[in-house]
Amino acid sequence: MHTRECFVSAPGKAILHGEHAVVHGKVALAVSLNLRTYLRLQSTSSCKVCINLPNIDTFLSWEITALQRLLVGCKELGDLKELDADLLKRLREFTGISDGSTDTRSMAVLAFLYIYLSVFAEAEENISSPLTPQQESARWSKEEMELINRWALMGEKIIHGNPSGVDNAVGTWGGILRYHAGNITPLSRVPVLRILLTNTKVPRSTKVLVSGVKDKINKFPSVMNPVLESVNAVSCTCEHTLTEMATHGPSAEHYTVLEELIDINQHHLNVMGVGHSSLDTLCRVTLARGLHSKLTGAGGGGCGITLLRPEMDASVIQSTIEELKGYGFECWETSIGAPGVQMHSPTAVKQGILKILNSY
Amino acid sequence: MHTRECFVSAPGKAILHGEHAVVHGKVALAVSLNLRTYLRLQSTSSCKVCINLPNIDTFLSWEITALQRLLVGCKELGDLKELDADLLKRLREFTGISDGSTDTRSMAVLAFLYIYLSVFAEAEENISSPLTPQQESARWSKEEMELINRWALMGEKIIHGNPSGVDNAVGTWGGILRYHAGNITPLSRVPVLRILLTNTKVPRSTKVLVSGVKDKINKFPSVMNPVLESVNAVSCTCEHTLTEMATHGPSAEHYTVLEELIDINQHHLNVMGVGHSSLDTLCRVTLARGLHSKLTGAGGGGCGITLLRPEMDASVIQSTIEELKGYGFECWETSIGAPGVQMHSPTAVKQGILKILNSY
Repeated sequence: MHTRECFVSAPGKAILHGEHAVVHGKVALAVSLNLRTYLRLQSTSSCKVCINLPNIDTFLSWEITALQRLLVGCKELGDLKELDADLLKRLREFTGISDGSTDTRSMAVLAFLYIYLSVFAEAEENISSPLTPQQESARWSKEEMELINRWALMGEKIIHGNPSGVDNAVGTWGGILRYHAGNITPLSRVPVLRILLTNTKVPRSTKVLVSGVKDKINKFPSVMNPVLESVNAVSCTCEHTLTEMATHGPSAEHYTVLEELIDINQHHLNVMGVGHSSLDTLCRVTLARGLHSKLTGAGGGGCGITLLRPEMDASVIQSTIEELKGYGFECWETSIGAPGVQMHSPTAVKQGILKILNSY
Repeated sequence: MHTRECFVSAPGKAILHGEHAVVHGKVALAVSLNLRTYLRLQSTSSCKVCINLPNIDTFLSWEITALQRLLVGCKELGDLKELDADLLKRLREFTGISDGSTDTRSMAVLAFLYIYLSVFAEAEENISSPLTPQQESARWSKEEMELINRWALMGEKIIHGNPSGVDNAVGTWGGILRYHAGNITPLSRVPVLRILLTNTKVPRSTKVLVSGVKDKINKFPSVMNPVLESVNAVSCTCEHTLTEMATHGPSAEHYTVLEELIDINQHHLNVMGVGHSSLDTLCRVTLARGLHSKLTGAGGGGCGITLLRPEMDASVIQSTIEELKGYGFECWETSIGAPGVQMHSPTAVKQGILKILNSY
């Protein structure tokens, strides 16, 4: 019997500017992507904790009492700064996931159970429901959000090992974040921008790309260091422009600046050697329709983003997507700068999403 | 009756690195192109001076006495620093070429007559024939070359108006010249490099392109100034590599560096906004065969150069040329770093060239 349920969503993340340069101490802008992950949380009368992660074909359940036993003799989980290595070890033994496992399912299960037990052990720091009956969606207080962010970081630490803290911050806070030398600062006012996200489906190794950039800087320091400097200025100029757009309202000239910065940074990323012919194709196809694109993230294939002006005709976007699909790419029309983690009233969740969530 | 004849040739010019950045005080490398202009000089028993410029369909002759009269009362032409405005005015009146004319034929005629009269008025500073009977080609003494360079600069002043002095210097000295803040320094040791020169045949205005770069620097100074700095470093790194190749012999790694610098600079030129889809096509087509290209000169279309490694197979070059021709481009396989102005023995001039020269 279902007694209570709630719906929560969090945005995806992309890098707008500063990928790779950020590794060398320059400013990067991380943005929320309104391609959201939805979670339906249900209390049940069974004595089990069940997770259904249909995207990665994972459906598991555990006896609550068995999970509770894992906390016996465990030290406090209160600080949420470092992972509790002992608890993680117990979870690995409990689930049978070995130290060497890095596959998505194993990591998702470990992260879920670790956070589930952390929340359980911290019962006093419960997070309330921010939704009033009239609201479609709502967010939590700053303090509760900070707690969510810290929990999310724990998940990142389990999955990624050595996370920058940007991914969990974008998921929590949404909008646009400035990342510089380990410090993450949300931009106080940001516009929501329409974009096209394109997955070239060309696989790449982030580690190899990052190390290639480092080698190039070592080989040509006098050539490459000014390029990193210029990328830094691109991020700062973009930040300034976005703040202006949010404060005074966006103008056509603002969009022109954003487009120019996208083009410049894409050329710089090519200089760093992280471009790819598939990304050149994306840029060429979109530019033929007056649209400006750059890679986002590690490059060497992977994903690219294309800025769409507010007045952009739907038919132009559709024909662009069709042409890009012809190259084997996958496209999503979405936006950046959207809200972070949110709670939704069931009536506010789109039918399509609700249908998927309710089918498990 | 022909009493004496001599054959002279001078190379073309291209910019290897630093176009546009040079306008903003950065280093550029100008290189000779072994696409040579040939001149046959004949003394005749007629009382006329005749010029045949078949490339621009110009065939003219003047009475020597009429030309000599133009020098009467003219001040000395000895310093060769500034144009003699009075002589130029007399020449314009004499030829009927008005002040506003800038077409190639008019400029060529004015430049020829001005230099002809200058040489005539400076009889004491005659230039000797450097050819000994055994030699196929020969060059002049440093002092004579400097005189040739100064005369060529006068021609540039007539044709261009405000020349940098690089074009005449490359034509005179050949090889590779470093140009920085108005100073022109020939590199003492340079390798000869095989290249493909491609004319995209896309017309462009140098003036508009130069002013566009300036506007972009003014709009995004913090982004653009480091790019100019990086281009400067590309020129300096290239200069260093070329000197090393000439001193210690070229290696595959030297060529890899030259290719990387070409790619980097092409991206930088795109950042400056002087790229063009035709140049992207050139880069894409050549890169598909492992060849690296960049625009040379003003960009926005115009010409591009492609570096060819010494071991490059003729069939690969031929198929590249064929594909580029398919885009409406014109290609020449040639070399850079070739000698400057030279005198040739008639037996050393290629039959095809001799045939053309002798047909007028």
